[in-house]
This record gives sequence, structure tokens and C-alpha cells, in this order.
Amino acid sequence: VAIEKETPENERPETFLRAADGAQASASTTVRARFEKMIREVQDEVCAAIEAADGGGKFKEDVWSRPGGGGGISRVLQDGGVWEKAGVNVSVVYGVMPPDAYRAAKGAEGDSSVTPGPVPFFAAGISSVLHPKNPFAPTLHFNYRYFETDAPKDAPGAPRQWWFGGGTDFTPAYIIEEDVKHFHRVQKQTCDKFDPSFYPRFKKWCDDYFFIKHRGERRGLGGIFFDDLNDYDQEMLLAFSTECAKSVIPAYLPIIEKRKDTPFNEQHKAWQQLRRGRYVEFNLVYDRGTTFGLKTGGRIESILVSLPLTARWEYDHQPEEGSEEWKLLDACINPKEWL
Amino acid sequence: VAIEKETPENERPETFLRAADGAQASASTTVRARFEKMIREVQDEVCAAIEAADGGGKFKEDVWSRPGGGGGISRVLQDGGVWEKAGVNVSVVYGVMPPDAYRAAKGAEGDSSVTPGPVPFFAAGISSVLHPKNPFAPTLHFNYRYFETDAPKDAPGAPRQWWFGGGTDFTPAYIIEEDVKHFHRVQKQTCDKFDPSFYPRFKKWCDDYFFIKHRGERRGLGGIFFDDLNDYDQEMLLAFSTECAKSVIPAYLPIIEKRKDTPFNEQHKAWQQLRRGRYVEFNLVYDRGTTFGLKTGGRIESILVSLPLTARWEYDHQPEEGSEEWKLLDACINPKEWL
Repeated sequence: VAIEKETPENERPETFLRAADGAQASASTTVRARFEKMIREVQDEVCAAIEAADGGGKFKEDVWSRPGGGGGISRVLQDGGVWEKAGVNVSVVYGVMPPDAYRAAKGAEGDSSVTPGPVPFFAAGISSVLHPKNPFAPTLHFNYRYFETDAPKDAPGAPRQWWFGGGTDFTPAYIIEEDVKHFHRVQKQTCDKFDPSFYPRFKKWCDDYFFIKHRGERRGLGGIFFDDLNDYDQEMLLAFSTECAKSVIPAYLPIIEKRKDTPFNEQHKAWQQLRRGRYVEFNLVYDRGTTFGLKTGGRIESILVSLPLTARWEYDHQPEEGSEEWKLLDACINPKEWL
Repeated sequence: VAIEKETPENERPETFLRAADGAQASASTTVRARFEKMIREVQDEVCAAIEAADGGGKFKEDVWSRPGGGGGISRVLQDGGVWEKAGVNVSVVYGVMPPDAYRAAKGAEGDSSVTPGPVPFFAAGISSVLHPKNPFAPTLHFNYRYFETDAPKDAPGAPRQWWFGGGTDFTPAYIIEEDVKHFHRVQKQTCDKFDPSFYPRFKKWCDDYFFIKHRGERRGLGGIFFDDLNDYDQEMLLAFSTECAKSVIPAYLPIIEKRKDTPFNEQHKAWQQLRRGRYVEFNLVYDRGTTFGLKTGGRIESILVSLPLTARWEYDHQPEEGSEEWKLLDACINPKEWL
């Protein structure tokens, strides 16, 4: 899978969809078009809320498109009042998937009858990482994406496939229980509106996914995560993804308001920086979006905006047993039920 | 390939070789034994020279072994007078290689006649990364390793294979031409003692290997690199690896002595930190030793000691054309002949 080189644009287009695909008013009811509209609204809302809370930093915007259709909007606030680095990106990609990848995504590995040739696909998503300065204010990541395949060219009758994926997870350097509970409570409330099995299932999926295997620890205190989700009604999953994305602000900003001015010392800052090092390790070694993006030649600066402004690696650092640093590490090694 | 869990040791053993394999005096003339002796001498010499030049920092030593044979000595100097982080490790590994990896290493992919089953192997190496504090003092990396396979158990007549690999490369944040020339001149002189084709060939190999593909740039200004080298006399390659390892001090320390106290400002420091970020990207995403070590469960703290103490990622940072920062970046994108 390789992706065309992107071209910078001076203005945000109305849509990144191909003309044949939803740019016409008549096609604006497709899931593709509605998902793009949703993620662009969420991008605007989150960026406005972050700027207001930051009280100084402004987002810098880069718009880009690809000759064959698709493109994106990257927004980054750097060295603000509250956030060290905050990136909120949306993108729309038209690509072609090798049959193996299609089968793997469909969970039909080894079944060579599933599709005969390369499969054109469509993907749209919002992706964001917010790294605050204060060691008591947590890092937040969220990502919601929609994926669709066209009918394969040499098998026009084959069914189109679609999936939703995404999640919201948070990564404090210190455990403040009321913050962790608030964050997970919002995730659970959002999930419970749709299916009571969602929160427990997606909470565990999150703990399993954000696992730094070589360390035997997770990068943070989790949240929710799901991928390749298509075994529910498509409208229900679109509404669920929308609700999850819209719950980012109430889940996160109240915590930031409380912690952005907490006094801290050099030791707190050094520990935050060590945890940022773990964030880098997870993203560069394991994160599917990042490793896939680096391999396929996506827009590098948009992909790597998830990396913190600064990070630290000390040889063989071991927090003292029972310390606040140790408690955080313990919760990353042994995920807890917070609710 | 998975590696046994290591056990800490209180004392350095005379050798990490298996008793049957070279621990006896009579076997001390094997290449395995001589290579282990060489890398342990070089570790002592380099650590002594670094401590002397640092004028304050001391190496912390960790010794470890594995139940089935093999082990290592990790030495790390952190937050010294001159170096931010300096790691010098030796290790000896006994493992078992899947047939595919063996064929790949032998350059016999697809030739299933080459070997019938898993292949026991022996590997010994020295590996070091030295990150100074001063932005005008370059980072140095060197690594020399020797690799041998046993005869496969189910084909005792099959030939044993051996290879040498390694290199020395350096990574300044700023180009000081006399330093770059000095560094490359020492590499060339060392190579020329053995074969006039070595320097040009291994200099190019180094430029090709330390390539951050997603950036289209190298991590630094190169040096020499070679891998899977077995098409020369084994004694000659042992002598060549030894000479390369022994030339680290004369290639590097005179540069450090000149640059360790160069005055610098915040902008110089920030640029050094951005280049350290690239170092992290290369090591976690591309470096074979690191990615292999993370996957096989080697000793994580020894593997990741190559990461800098601190690193930085700014969104879409572009040095001003013609600036000193731009010149360094240009030389990383377009490798130059320095001699």
C-alpha cells in the first residue's frame, strides 16, 4: 500500500470527497459524507475549546489534498499557555488495499475465495494528541475513523465492506483518582447509551491495545478502544462514533481546568518526561496508525504530531516502591477497574 | 527467535562462553573466545577514556547472564560533566535461528536445500552510544559483532557459518568540517590497512543503513558500516574488526576535547534536541539490533541505552535556508564525500 504525495492547499475545501462520491448535494446523505462532516465539526469544536482553555496558544493550520482525491487538515498548537503540543488532524484517504490486508481486516485470513484482486478503499478519520505542560495534567489521545471498501474491479458483484474504529484514552504521569474516575465515567456513560457491553469490552480492548510489549506496561490508564467494528447496525455505529468524539471535551477539559496550575517541582517534571519517552516508544514501535503511516508515505508531519515536544530516557529508572511514581507505573502494568 | 530471561550477576565472570565452548584454556584460541576477549578489552579502554575525558561522571555497571550460557556487561555513565548519557555494552548470546533467518543471513533465500531445521547460533558484540551535552560535540555510535552458527542438529555434516558486522558512525548537530574530516580520515586509515576497497564501500553502506526512510534523511554524517561479512579470510576480518574497535578513541576523543566547552545558546540546544529526536526515530523504527532486541525479549535497558537522555519534536520544523542547521540537514539528505 502506498499513498500519493500530498499537495498543500491555501483554503479548506467544502469536502475532501471525490466529486463522484459525495461532493454533490444529493450524495450528502452517504455515510462517507456524514462521517467527514462530523469529524470536521469535532475538529472545529475541540480546537476552539483547547484555544479557549489554553489562554494564549493558537492553532496553526495546514490544509493538503491528493491528486486522486482525499486530503486533510492538520492543526497544531505548540508551546501554548497550558499545552506543550496539541495536534488535531482530520484526513480523508482513497487507496488500494492488497487482498491480504482486506482479508485480514475482514477476519477472513486464509480464505482466498473472499476477494480476487486489489480492493479500492476509502478511509476518513480524526486523530488528536494533546500534551499539556503541567505534570499533573494528563495527555489525551482520541481517534475516530470510518473505513469502506469499493466493490473489487474484477468482481463488481462482491459486497462492499465497512468498519468503524477508534477510541479515547488518557495518559497522566500521576494518578489523581477523581480525575481517572471522571474520565472513565464519561466513557462509560457514552457507551451505555448504545450497548451495556460496550464499555467493559472497549475498556479491555484499550488496555490490550496500548501495550508496550517490551516493557510489559501500558502507556497510560486507558479509556476505550475498538477496531474493525461492523457487527452492529451502521447507523447505530455512526451515532456511537459521533457521540464518542463529542464526549472528548466533557471527559477531558474539566480535568485540565483543575490541574493546569498545580504547583510542581523538577522531580515531577522529570517523571512526566520519562512517561513521555514511553509514549514515543509505543507510538513509533506499536501504534498501527503510526507504523502504517510511516511505511506508506503518509504526511509525516501529521503522523508524527502525536510525539511529545520533549521526552526523556534514563537508564534503568525504577521508582521507589510505594511512591506516587510507582503507583502510576503499577497501574500501567496491572490495569485497574476505575468505576 | 526468543531469548531466555537474564539473571543479574554480582561479579564479572572470566568469560560468558559455555564451558564446552571456550572456557577451557585449551579453547581460548577459538575465534569466539578471541572476539569476546577483544570486545571486553575495548569496553574497558573506551570506558576508561570516557571517564577521564568526562572529568566527573562514573560508569555504573550491570552484569547479567543467561541460564543456557551467554550474558553481558552493561556500563552507563549518565549526567556527567561532558556526556549526557554514555552506554558501552558487551554481550554474548547463544540462540536458535529459524531456517528462514539463516537462509536470509546466508543470502540463500528461497533455496530450501541450504539447511533443514532450526540452527543454533552464537553471537558476541560490543555496542556503544555516546551522547554529549554540548551541541557542538557530536554523538558517537559504534558496534562490532561476530556471529557463528553451529552445524544443524539434524544435518551434522553441514558447514558452520560465520560473519562479522559492525561500524562506527557519528552524528553532530552542527558541521565543523575539520571534525568531520578527522573522523572520516581515521575510518579510512583503519580500512586502508586491510583493503583499499573497504572505506568507499563501507562508507556508502553506512550512508545507506542509517537512513530514516520516512524523513528521506540520514540520522547523521556517517562513517563506516558492514554486515554479514564472510567473503574474506576469517583471521583478516577478526583483525579488521579489532582495529576498527581500537580506533574509536583516536577518531572521537580529540573532537570532544575541542568542542566540549564551546559556548552555545538555547537555539543551538533546541536544534541538538531535534536531531536527538531523529536519533530516536531511527533507532526505534529502523535499527536492526534495536527492533530485533525488542521483539526477542533481550535485556531492554541495555538495548534502549542507545536512546538519548532527552529529545524533542517540533511540528514541521524547517531550518532557514543557508543557516548552520540547514547545512547539517542538507548533508543528512545528500551524503557528501568528506575526504
